[in-house]
Amino acid sequence: MMTNAINVAVIGYGYWGPNLARNFHQLPEARLALVADLDAARLAEVARLYPTTTVTTDYRQALARPEIVAVAVATPVRTHFAIAQEALLAGKHVLVEKPLALTAAEAEALIALAEQQQRTLMVGHTFEYNPAVWKIKELIAAGEIGQVYYAYANRVNLGRVQWDINALWNIAPHDVSILLYLLEAMPLEVSARGAVYLSQGVEDVVFLTLTFPGNVLAHVQASWLDPSKVRRLTIVGSEKMIVYDDVDNEAKVKIYDKGVYRKGNAAYGEFQFRVHSGDIHIPRIDMTEPLRNECAHFIECVRTGQRPRTDGACGLRVVRVLEAAQRSLERGGASVQV
Amino acid sequence: MMTNAINVAVIGYGYWGPNLARNFHQLPEARLALVADLDAARLAEVARLYPTTTVTTDYRQALARPEIVAVAVATPVRTHFAIAQEALLAGKHVLVEKPLALTAAEAEALIALAEQQQRTLMVGHTFEYNPAVWKIKELIAAGEIGQVYYAYANRVNLGRVQWDINALWNIAPHDVSILLYLLEAMPLEVSARGAVYLSQGVEDVVFLTLTFPGNVLAHVQASWLDPSKVRRLTIVGSEKMIVYDDVDNEAKVKIYDKGVYRKGNAAYGEFQFRVHSGDIHIPRIDMTEPLRNECAHFIECVRTGQRPRTDGACGLRVVRVLEAAQRSLERGGASVQV
Amino acid sequence: MMTNAINVAVIGYGYWGPNLARNFHQLPEARLALVADLDAARLAEVARLYPTTTVTTDYRQALARPEIVAVAVATPVRTHFAIAQEALLAGKHVLVEKPLALTAAEAEALIALAEQQQRTLMVGHTFEYNPAVWKIKELIAAGEIGQVYYAYANRVNLGRVQWDINALWNIAPHDVSILLYLLEAMPLEVSARGAVYLSQGVEDVVFLTLTFPGNVLAHVQASWLDPSKVRRLTIVGSEKMIVYDDVDNEAKVKIYDKGVYRKGNAAYGEFQFRVHSGDIHIPRIDMTEPLRNECAHFIECVRTGQRPRTDGACGLRVVRVLEAAQRSLERGGASVQV
Amino acid sequence: MMTNAINVAVIGYGYWGPNLARNFHQLPEARLALVADLDAARLAEVARLYPTTTVTTDYRQALARPEIVAVAVATPVRTHFAIAQEALLAGKHVLVEKPLALTAAEAEALIALAEQQQRTLMVGHTFEYNPAVWKIKELIAAGEIGQVYYAYANRVNLGRVQWDINALWNIAPHDVSILLYLLEAMPLEVSARGAVYLSQGVEDVVFLTLTFPGNVLAHVQASWLDPSKVRRLTIVGSEKMIVYDDVDNEAKVKIYDKGVYRKGNAAYGEFQFRVHSGDIHIPRIDMTEPLRNECAHFIECVRTGQRPRTDGACGLRVVRVLEAAQRSLERGGASVQV
Repeated sequence: MMTNAINVAVIGYGYWGPNLARNFHQLPEARLALVADLDAARLAEVARLYPTTTVTTDYRQALARPEIVAVAVATPVRTHFAIAQEALLAGKHVLVEKPLALTAAEAEALIALAEQQQRTLMVGHTFEYNPAVWKIKELIAAGEIGQVYYAYANRVNLGRVQWDINALWNIAPHDVSILLYLLEAMPLEVSARGAVYLSQGVEDVVFLTLTFPGNVLAHVQASWLDPSKVRRLTIVGSEKMIVYDDVDNEAKVKIYDKGVYRKGNAAYGEFQFRVHSGDIHIPRIDMTEPLRNECAHFIECVRTGQRPRTDGACGLRVVRVLEAAQRSLERGGASVQV
Repeated sequence: MMTNAINVAVIGYGYWGPNLARNFHQLPEARLALVADLDAARLAEVARLYPTTTVTTDYRQALARPEIVAVAVATPVRTHFAIAQEALLAGKHVLVEKPLALTAAEAEALIALAEQQQRTLMVGHTFEYNPAVWKIKELIAAGEIGQVYYAYANRVNLGRVQWDINALWNIAPHDVSILLYLLEAMPLEVSARGAVYLSQGVEDVVFLTLTFPGNVLAHVQASWLDPSKVRRLTIVGSEKMIVYDDVDNEAKVKIYDKGVYRKGNAAYGEFQFRVHSGDIHIPRIDMTEPLRNECAHFIECVRTGQRPRTDGACGLRVVRVLEAAQRSLERGGASVQV
Repeated sequence: MMTNAINVAVIGYGYWGPNLARNFHQLPEARLALVADLDAARLAEVARLYPTTTVTTDYRQALARPEIVAVAVATPVRTHFAIAQEALLAGKHVLVEKPLALTAAEAEALIALAEQQQRTLMVGHTFEYNPAVWKIKELIAAGEIGQVYYAYANRVNLGRVQWDINALWNIAPHDVSILLYLLEAMPLEVSARGAVYLSQGVEDVVFLTLTFPGNVLAHVQASWLDPSKVRRLTIVGSEKMIVYDDVDNEAKVKIYDKGVYRKGNAAYGEFQFRVHSGDIHIPRIDMTEPLRNECAHFIECVRTGQRPRTDGACGLRVVRVLEAAQRSLERGGASVQV
Repeated sequence: MMTNAINVAVIGYGYWGPNLARNFHQLPEARLALVADLDAARLAEVARLYPTTTVTTDYRQALARPEIVAVAVATPVRTHFAIAQEALLAGKHVLVEKPLALTAAEAEALIALAEQQQRTLMVGHTFEYNPAVWKIKELIAAGEIGQVYYAYANRVNLGRVQWDINALWNIAPHDVSILLYLLEAMPLEVSARGAVYLSQGVEDVVFLTLTFPGNVLAHVQASWLDPSKVRRLTIVGSEKMIVYDDVDNEAKVKIYDKGVYRKGNAAYGEFQFRVHSGDIHIPRIDMTEPLRNECAHFIECVRTGQRPRTDGACGLRVVRVLEAAQRSLERGGASVQV
């Protein structure tokens, strides 16, 4: 690390924490000063991998140490709010894993607290640090695909089954954050249907529709009970169409020069359509790990005071959509305004 | 053809009619006696391809000729009912393309008429004659995948845009017929959301959810405004999972020995799950053209009087689901009982 | 057909003959007047599919009929020469399936005879009528991929096992014709190795290398004993690289903006390389059936007297390469000059 | 690490060294005690990633330290022999990256020296520690695919261009080691052809054929000048066929129940064949990193004195094949006995 590297603590070393720890460890601008987790076996592994890092079962140690100026919270979602709040109160800069909190009220409280404490509050919407998503944003913003018609995302996999949080809150935040980022808008209303198979009251699969301004329809399918790992987003525009397949290493983003146009006027009420099917283009995408970009950005914000790209407000927006979707889920798919 | 081959007329030679004509022509048990279409250029092509087949712009010629005992109706959906009715009244056996009709009332009228006329009424649910679908049915029926949890289908493509019928009625009938066939049940309720981009009042994309008895959730995505041709159905069971990809020639049906099981009892409210991820098996699927199977079955039913696998009642069930889905679509996705 | 459609006879209705028959039947400019085959059951099928076409077990009937002006020869390779010769002597225009003959001497004799008889002699190198191959030729000719470095083709499958002709003569002619067409050159020398598993003396798998002028190396793998159908050609140029995958419907031709460049001078004997890895482009390829293009071109040549793109000389070049490769095969892979 | 963890030094931190260092660091039974490399910038990175590891530009420091009992040599191939020899003489256990040496004589000298010094000599044939390769070995050994007919491997990529060693020595060792491991035999003769495009005298692409006892033919294509990363091995047996695709995460090993059988006797010299095309099976493959298995095995051998699976003799066999192939390459593809 550099002499003036920022000391960071990672709180929570379950599924995602190891990735945060590895990235902060690898960043020259940061120092992985401390890792906290309740599981002693996990901590022993941390000690072996990062012998100069302090390990502890008590995350409050991270908050107590003055040399630690930033913490990353990767604990179960239900604890995000309490730990982030405590960290901000202790004067730390805080990166919270997605979703930022379980309610909009909690997210708002964190935003207000960070403001008051003059500390960085950032949410770990990893895909907003993904070069493939940046490329798609650039294409849409430049008008390359014309008017956005609709988009749909499939994020399914086998495993990482949760018992305290459903697939909506566990998996869909990624796609909600991507959609809000790409469309630069909040949905007007959402609707969600799901089904419970493994743990009472916890949806294993969720189908979510979001209606954005301008007749833009979006659909998200989230499941941890699926035979294959799929992470695909399709965006259909009036001029071009984009398929983003995150598990395809050679062709992450495909731009299809395809579209349907109405020909002339409708004679006798019948429209004629011209289907245009042209070339496909696969732009080169920078292969840096999105989480590395995210961690580096957090460190940069801590150092300079600049506002993170995925600040508290950004985290709040996603939580608002999830809250509305949860309400729809509980009402059997009824449309809920955001 | 054989000396006692059944004379068949194909009414409608647009998108699907040529496939019906080709198959009846190739079947030894049938003779393609007549093709009717309003477009003279199409008829000229028929005359060139099948020089011994009568061509006409007046489909009533088919009904008038006594040697023609069976007709296949492949006209626009809005005309299915009228033409099929007329054909039955003329004493013909009738194969109607999917969907059988635009309303349950019409479908019921056709069923009653066929009964009264003692003629075969069959609906062209092609996928119920697809060896891949037969294989999946066999696996589910044998309990191979355990309890069916949920299923989802993507049927999207670019092209074949309609102006008089939306993606629900044009594309989704395939998946609805497959689901009803595989699950051997009617959905309790359905919900559909869609969006209109090309022709006023005609949804180009539709997201449909169906709730079957026993907590089986199904989802269908249908669109003619998509960059790629996708025809995929995933079925998740408690013991195994199946992916049916109709555009994959080598691996149409994949059986995943995968599942998630609860371990022991929940301590302190926390469940433990064991994810099992075993082998994948790809059974050999007979490569006969489904439409050939369908046409052969129709001829067989005409010849023997046996009831078709996809009889009028089968066509009616699909129409009932579509009707309910259409109502949901018009009510912004509200749940509608079937 | 048109009134002045060309009457064509197809001789040989085994594996490829049905495709020729179907295409000549479908072409407005041609009339499938006669099909000859030794197998009565096949002929019965022809009679059913094409009721106005004459069927016969005696191909000489085709040669005897004055109204038949052109014949397509799709018989076993060992009979190509004799039947084509007889047909030319009878004053017919002749399309011969690949390879044109079993020896260069035979091919030369056919060329001389066609010249003397003033009749069209064309060889059925289908891939030279394939829009994907045309596109690649266009790219190479325009200098798009820079200098061609090397190329390799895999053409393997399970089935269509031969007992009288090895994989070199049965499968490799396609790739040899493509390579000669794309590179516009004859190889200086060839080398082939193979192995025999099913029929004594008949190689089931062959690995062929061809050295073209300008240090262009090419490699062809041909086998009918392989688990999957692969038809892939990769062409590596100094500026770009092309992959042509004939079984990929969405991305038949991929153009990779990739290359390796030497940086500056070698210091201390060590070179530095810069690897450039840019976008991938998938041009839209016209989807017309190559065999239809081929059949239409044959009819056009018969009608106008123009020289076919794949004339006798073109067929001879491929036979010369195969003859040299066969000699290498018999000498255990020794290099043989063409 | 454990208290009695084995101290390991990694010599060479270029392309492969970092992977060795990471794995030794992660293994509880080992301690990454030292990393040596000539490049100070690389060493700075090591110091940051592994703050308790000694870094040095002088690899002899590793040999001088008594607490370091084992070294892994990942330097340029031309230095393998000298450094491994020096390390053995210093009493260290040695893991050498593939290929073990540049000549059989050097490999033999290392084997003799290790014997004499009673130290472990192991070669880093990573694929012999790959669970997918283990699975294939198991299938072949159990007779599952019948008699092995032939095998072919494609190992191509863009990048990692070498100036001092050709694609034969740099890339093909993987496939040669896999083939020798699976077939449990040495080839009788080999033949290789290649082409030079980037650095004088260094083949960028090589096509290698190997003839094994029992009429087993094998083919290896190696290139660092290719648009896509391909790592595929196909093995055709008399009863079944296997495709091993190392870059496919879901279906690394596919077992095809496919084969061709001769039917009855040849009448009139004509054989009849029956093509059997059955199911495809994809066995679950353990996902542990092969290099981790390899490093753990090395540590285990150092600790217990057991002979490594890829001992010096194993490394020698691969070098012998490469030497013969190099001679063939220099003689334009002439067959060379091994």
